[in-house]
Amino acid sequence: MSHTARLQRLDAAIQASTLDAIVLNAGPSLPYMTGLHVHLSERPVVACFTPGMSPTLVLPALEAQKVSHLPYGMDVYTYSESLASWDTAFEAALGHLPENAVIGVEDGVLRFLELRYLQSAAPSARFVSGEEVMATLRMRKDDVERALMQEAVRMAEVALRQTLPHVKPGVTEREISSRLIANMLSEGSGGELPFQPIIAFGANSANPHAVPTDYAAREGDLILFDWGANNEGYFSDMTRTFVLGEATDDVRHMYSVVEKANEAGRAAGRPGATAGSLDTATRHVIEEAGFGPRFVHRTGHGLGLDVHEPPYIRDGNDAVLEIGMTYTIEPGIYLPELGGVRIEDDMIITDSGSESLTTLTRELTMLPL
Amino acid sequence: MSHTARLQRLDAAIQASTLDAIVLNAGPSLPYMTGLHVHLSERPVVACFTPGMSPTLVLPALEAQKVSHLPYGMDVYTYSESLASWDTAFEAALGHLPENAVIGVEDGVLRFLELRYLQSAAPSARFVSGEEVMATLRMRKDDVERALMQEAVRMAEVALRQTLPHVKPGVTEREISSRLIANMLSEGSGGELPFQPIIAFGANSANPHAVPTDYAAREGDLILFDWGANNEGYFSDMTRTFVLGEATDDVRHMYSVVEKANEAGRAAGRPGATAGSLDTATRHVIEEAGFGPRFVHRTGHGLGLDVHEPPYIRDGNDAVLEIGMTYTIEPGIYLPELGGVRIEDDMIITDSGSESLTTLTRELTMLPL
Repeated sequence: MSHTARLQRLDAAIQASTLDAIVLNAGPSLPYMTGLHVHLSERPVVACFTPGMSPTLVLPALEAQKVSHLPYGMDVYTYSESLASWDTAFEAALGHLPENAVIGVEDGVLRFLELRYLQSAAPSARFVSGEEVMATLRMRKDDVERALMQEAVRMAEVALRQTLPHVKPGVTEREISSRLIANMLSEGSGGELPFQPIIAFGANSANPHAVPTDYAAREGDLILFDWGANNEGYFSDMTRTFVLGEATDDVRHMYSVVEKANEAGRAAGRPGATAGSLDTATRHVIEEAGFGPRFVHRTGHGLGLDVHEPPYIRDGNDAVLEIGMTYTIEPGIYLPELGGVRIEDDMIITDSGSESLTTLTRELTMLPL
Repeated sequence: MSHTARLQRLDAAIQASTLDAIVLNAGPSLPYMTGLHVHLSERPVVACFTPGMSPTLVLPALEAQKVSHLPYGMDVYTYSESLASWDTAFEAALGHLPENAVIGVEDGVLRFLELRYLQSAAPSARFVSGEEVMATLRMRKDDVERALMQEAVRMAEVALRQTLPHVKPGVTEREISSRLIANMLSEGSGGELPFQPIIAFGANSANPHAVPTDYAAREGDLILFDWGANNEGYFSDMTRTFVLGEATDDVRHMYSVVEKANEAGRAAGRPGATAGSLDTATRHVIEEAGFGPRFVHRTGHGLGLDVHEPPYIRDGNDAVLEIGMTYTIEPGIYLPELGGVRIEDDMIITDSGSESLTTLTRELTMLPL
C-alpha cells in the first residue's frame, strides 16, 4: 500500500474516532505512514495528522534533506540547535488545531520530551492514547509486508543453522550470541535487531528473559535460542530449544508438552477467533499435563514493525483475529533447577486459517557433543 | 561507586532540588542507580526514589527474580498479565507521596505509557523534568566507568582495523557495516550497539546521519565510518574518514581543516571550561577556512550510558566541564557533491586538561585500491 493510501486510511480512522488529530513521533508508525525514517534522539521529531489537511512535521534542520523526496504534500517546520527555535516549530506545526483538541499519541513511543513541547504549543489540547487507532491500521499486513516478514524469518533461520554446529560443551552463551548476530547481519539483517538474542543454557533457560552470560554449556544442558532479524524494519521473533547431548526422560516429557501446546496454539488461529482463545488453547495443553503454574507468561504477541504489538495473545483478550494479522505462538514451561523449554513460531492469519512463517522443525533435536 | 553510595547521592540531590521524588523507568539511569537491568517494553517498569525511604519498584511478576539479589532494601510491587493489577501496583508504589508532590522524570526516557499510570496513581502530583538532577549524578565518570569506556573504545578500534582491509572498489556500505558490527561483537561488544554504524561512501558522506545503502565504493571516494561499541552499557562513538585511493587537493585541504578543528576542540577541554567554548574552538578553525556554513551540527555531546547525554558541546552552552566528564569532539565539513569529512574522538576531562580515549591516528589515510 502506498504512503498516500495509508495517509487516506489514517484520515478516515481519525474521523471515525473521537480524536481531532494524531501526533506521531520517531518510531515505527512514522515511517509506516510517511516513508520518513528518523531516529529517536534528544532532538524531538513529530508529525501531526489532521483529517482534510496536509500533515505537518517538526524536524531538526539537520534532517531536512530527508523530506525532499516525499511523494505527497507535507508542511515542514524545522528548528536549529538553538532551543528557542524548538518551541517556534512546535507552535507552527500545531497552530491549525481547534481549541480543546483531542490528540491521540502512541503510549509506548511518545516521550515526556515531545509531550512537553506539544503541551506548550497546544495548551488547551488533551492528549490521549491513539494506540488503538494506529493498531487498527498496522495490524493487518498486506502481501508486501508478509513477504518482508517471511524474509526476516529466513534470515534468522539461516543464521541459526550456521550457528548450531558451534554449540559444544565449553562454549559460552555470549560466544554463541555474537556468532548468531554476525550470521544474521551477513544474511542481510539490519543492525537494529528486534531484541538482543536470548541465548540461555542449562538452568539459565528457566528465565524467559535471560541475558547471555559467560556460562559455558555442559553435556545434557537445555540450549534455548530466542532470536529474530530485521528486514527493512520488519521483525522475526522465534524460539527453539535443543538439548546438548542426550535428553533425559524428564526433558523429553516437558518438551513434548510444549510441542503439543505450540501445535494447539497454531491450530487455533483463524479469522474470527479471539486472540484470547489461542492463549486458552496452548494453556489447556500445559495445564492438563500438570505444568500450568510453570507457564508463566502469555502465549504470544503481535509482530511486525514492532517486536511486541497488537494483537496480544493473552488470556481474556477478545480482539478478533483478521486476515493478515501476524503474531507469535510461544508457549513454554520453566523449571527452576532444570531449565526452560519454549517453542515460538511467527504466524499469519489467512483466509482459511493460519500459517507459520517459521519453517524450522519443532521436533526435539539433540545436538551432537 | 556502589549502588548504595549512588542511592545516597541521589537522595541528597533530590533534597537539594525542588523535587519531592524522582521516578525512573527502564533506561540507563535505572541500572546505574539500582543495578537492575530491565528492557523497555510494553510492560511498564518504574522505580520511585524518595529521600529517607527505601526505593519502591513496579515490575511485571515475570521479572520478579531480577530483584532477589539486590544489596539494599527496595519495596517491590509486581503486577500480573491482568491489566487491573497494573494500577494496583502503581498505586502501592506511589502511595507514600505527599499531596501535590513534584516528581522529576527523565524527558527522553519516560513514555506516555508510564506517565498515564503514574498520573492515575498520584493524581495531585506534578511531573517535571528531572534530567538535570540525573545528569549531575551521571556526568562525572569514576575510574571504573572510565575503564569501561576505554574498553568500549578498544573494541571499536580493533573492529575498524579488521574491517578496513575489506574496503575496496565495489564493496557496498551495507557489506562493510555488517562486517564492522560482526567484528565489534566478536571483540566482546554487547549486541545493543549505541547506534547503527554510519558507513557512508562518496557523496553519501555529506549526510551526517547517513544510513548504509547498497552504494558500492569507487576509487577516489571519501569513506566515512561513524561507529561505536557497547561495553556493559557504556558506549564508544567515534568517526574516521578515509579516502579510497589517492586524495585530490580539495579533499586534502578540507581534511586538514577538520583535523585542525578537531585538535583545537580537544585542546580546549579542561576543568572549568564551558562546554560552549569547545564548540567555539572547533568552529573558529572551520569558519576561518571559509567552511563555516558547511559545519552543520554542534561539536559534540556527552557520552556514557547514553550515546547522547550532557554535557552537550554546543554553542552557548555554559555548563562547566569537570573532572571525569566524557564527551565527543566531532567537527565536520559537508560538501553536497564531494562528501563529508568528520573526525570524532571520545574525550575525558582530567585534573590537568583532557585526554582522548580514542587512540586511532587522525592523519589522512588513503586506503590501498
